[in-house]
Amino acid sequence: MNQASIASLISRRTLLKNWSAGAIGLMLIGGKLPSILAADESRLLVHSKAPMNAEPPLPDLVRSWITPVESFFIRSHGNTPEINADSFRLTVEGLVETPQALSLAELGRFEQHAVTATLTCAGNRRSEHSRLKPVKGVQWREGAIGNAKWRGARLSDLLKKAGVRESAKHVWFEGLDSVEDGGKTFAFGGSIPLEKALLDRDVAPGALLATMMNDKPLTADHGFPVRTVVPGYIGARSVKWLSKIVVSDRPSPNHFVADVYKLVDEGTLLEVAENAPIYRMPLNSAICSPMAGAALKPGRIEVAGYALPSGVPGVSIRKVEVSADQGRSWAEAKLTSMASEFCWQLWTAEIAVNSTTKELIVRAIDSRGDVQPETVRWNAKGYLFNAWHHVPVN
Amino acid sequence: MNQASIASLISRRTLLKNWSAGAIGLMLIGGKLPSILAADESRLLVHSKAPMNAEPPLPDLVRSWITPVESFFIRSHGNTPEINADSFRLTVEGLVETPQALSLAELGRFEQHAVTATLTCAGNRRSEHSRLKPVKGVQWREGAIGNAKWRGARLSDLLKKAGVRESAKHVWFEGLDSVEDGGKTFAFGGSIPLEKALLDRDVAPGALLATMMNDKPLTADHGFPVRTVVPGYIGARSVKWLSKIVVSDRPSPNHFVADVYKLVDEGTLLEVAENAPIYRMPLNSAICSPMAGAALKPGRIEVAGYALPSGVPGVSIRKVEVSADQGRSWAEAKLTSMASEFCWQLWTAEIAVNSTTKELIVRAIDSRGDVQPETVRWNAKGYLFNAWHHVPVN
Repeated sequence: MNQASIASLISRRTLLKNWSAGAIGLMLIGGKLPSILAADESRLLVHSKAPMNAEPPLPDLVRSWITPVESFFIRSHGNTPEINADSFRLTVEGLVETPQALSLAELGRFEQHAVTATLTCAGNRRSEHSRLKPVKGVQWREGAIGNAKWRGARLSDLLKKAGVRESAKHVWFEGLDSVEDGGKTFAFGGSIPLEKALLDRDVAPGALLATMMNDKPLTADHGFPVRTVVPGYIGARSVKWLSKIVVSDRPSPNHFVADVYKLVDEGTLLEVAENAPIYRMPLNSAICSPMAGAALKPGRIEVAGYALPSGVPGVSIRKVEVSADQGRSWAEAKLTSMASEFCWQLWTAEIAVNSTTKELIVRAIDSRGDVQPETVRWNAKGYLFNAWHHVPVN
Repeated sequence: MNQASIASLISRRTLLKNWSAGAIGLMLIGGKLPSILAADESRLLVHSKAPMNAEPPLPDLVRSWITPVESFFIRSHGNTPEINADSFRLTVEGLVETPQALSLAELGRFEQHAVTATLTCAGNRRSEHSRLKPVKGVQWREGAIGNAKWRGARLSDLLKKAGVRESAKHVWFEGLDSVEDGGKTFAFGGSIPLEKALLDRDVAPGALLATMMNDKPLTADHGFPVRTVVPGYIGARSVKWLSKIVVSDRPSPNHFVADVYKLVDEGTLLEVAENAPIYRMPLNSAICSPMAGAALKPGRIEVAGYALPSGVPGVSIRKVEVSADQGRSWAEAKLTSMASEFCWQLWTAEIAVNSTTKELIVRAIDSRGDVQPETVRWNAKGYLFNAWHHVPVN
């Protein structure tokens, strides 16, 4: 049985029941409850519909290592464009010898690679970060993350065909969506260093031009007909509805590279100018079950969640630890999925709880020995929140 | 009596005596001893003569808030150029309405500002950092720092005269020295965001085009006839022997901006591309007296040193603490100099030592409540080492 059919076995009723139980906890911790999409094919909690921003209830995330499309978070900055696959062309321009304008059929003639990679929004867990001090932006819980099997041509193969000039240092991506911001309308854009684009490793390419997600064509919400997938980087660099690739000697001047996705204390123009765009995702972990507010019976309970290695090439998760006593003692979790570069791992842990248990905590340790931080410094945009994950329980 | 004459009262013999006492400690901790310049007018320990890299013995640093020129560290990347003041021209070009080529006399006709600012090398304390794991580069002790009174025109005034175009975002600086690196010969260059260049605050300009240091013309080692001084930024952005200013829409492609002064784990080309140039100096402090290896008598002793606020606008030192018992207890130091944005403060502390005292430790806390970190993550180039400063004593 494949992941999609497993997911479809879980009834809408079960979902709502699970979610309602969790909702108590979310309300207790002061969050505003997002609505649930009416459509049966979606299992997502919708933060906004235009643009579409939605994430799954946490228990859905730990049902399978590969996240079904219907449980995969959606992060859009503009409209979801309707694209005619026949007339669609992907252009490659800038510092190349031979500019390209490729149809989908031509893209399909490049060697096709399958790669499993986790995408996560730089704003994942922003709602927790906002409890330090509120920040603007979608108030993501812990579900702006998903792991999928992507298939398509390697960006490096397109670049080889186009012939990259010696002065090239960065590769820009531009989508077919229309973002409205500050009185202007423009396409969402991303950018990665050329070194990343060319870093094809054993299991993951530097970047993939994906047309398939979990063995099916991309859905409109996920970037049909083609999107970049940049393993190890924040989701914002994996541009959906990709239509233009520009090879340049510098990072893209697009608003979402030059201004938005940066770590800044206060967000002054000076700080924005001083800091590089965020590229790599951070070491992270979260408890997905039980959910916040769950009523637990004293005894041994099962805890489940995900752990994400940082975007450092070659680094994976070494250990996940769970505590039921405010971090005084830690139980080692069992990693239940395979270790793969730039991919999350799922885990379960058995831990004893009693009437004094107030919360469960998780932290991950990676193969370099880096420990997920206990606390994180507040930043003006609420990015890369990866402190130990606390789940209040009753 | 001014600082220079105070300094001249301290005899060469005293200096050598002080330095010899400290040298024992340095040898004990495995450092290679730099030579001392023969010339009586210099009090510096020389790491290399071509290029000239030298720092003062630490006790010299805490004699006065303003560091005398002869005790001010020298950090050069190439030769020390001989410049004809009469034919010298400073050009302003790039994204400006009216390019400039200014003689020293013309520079002198801009309003002259005096500003006290601390300069410190990004590699200050690299020798300590190298004890974690050795890195290349000048093995600075804690003396690659100094505080001086600079005088000259504001960069912003030159930019106003030249007329900055709307697309401008960064300002590049280029010196008249010749750096040899990787088989190429080129001028040392720096770069700052335009926002910084225009950030003229109460006590400090965004950047000064200094021709005077401590009320005298710049010496050749410090950039005669003119250098930039960028308060709050690492010394590498305060370019000496300045001859060219370029206004641009991006940071300078100069090797020392694009490649060298960056925080990187391993130093791969990918990491270099992912990270921004280092701009701000970090919160730091060091004990300058007693020196490492000093033999202390049990009882109350006086400790002295410096504390440096980070390059965050408006932030100053709130508190300095010293420990003689491995950090179990801390004595608050007395700040003996004025608080001024982007300037160090000197401090003294009385603390009890006994036969079990193995080391003295200092840490600084700034006006935002940030505490100097106990440890620092190793980075491939050994920059921004600002862990608590430990001084082994007998």
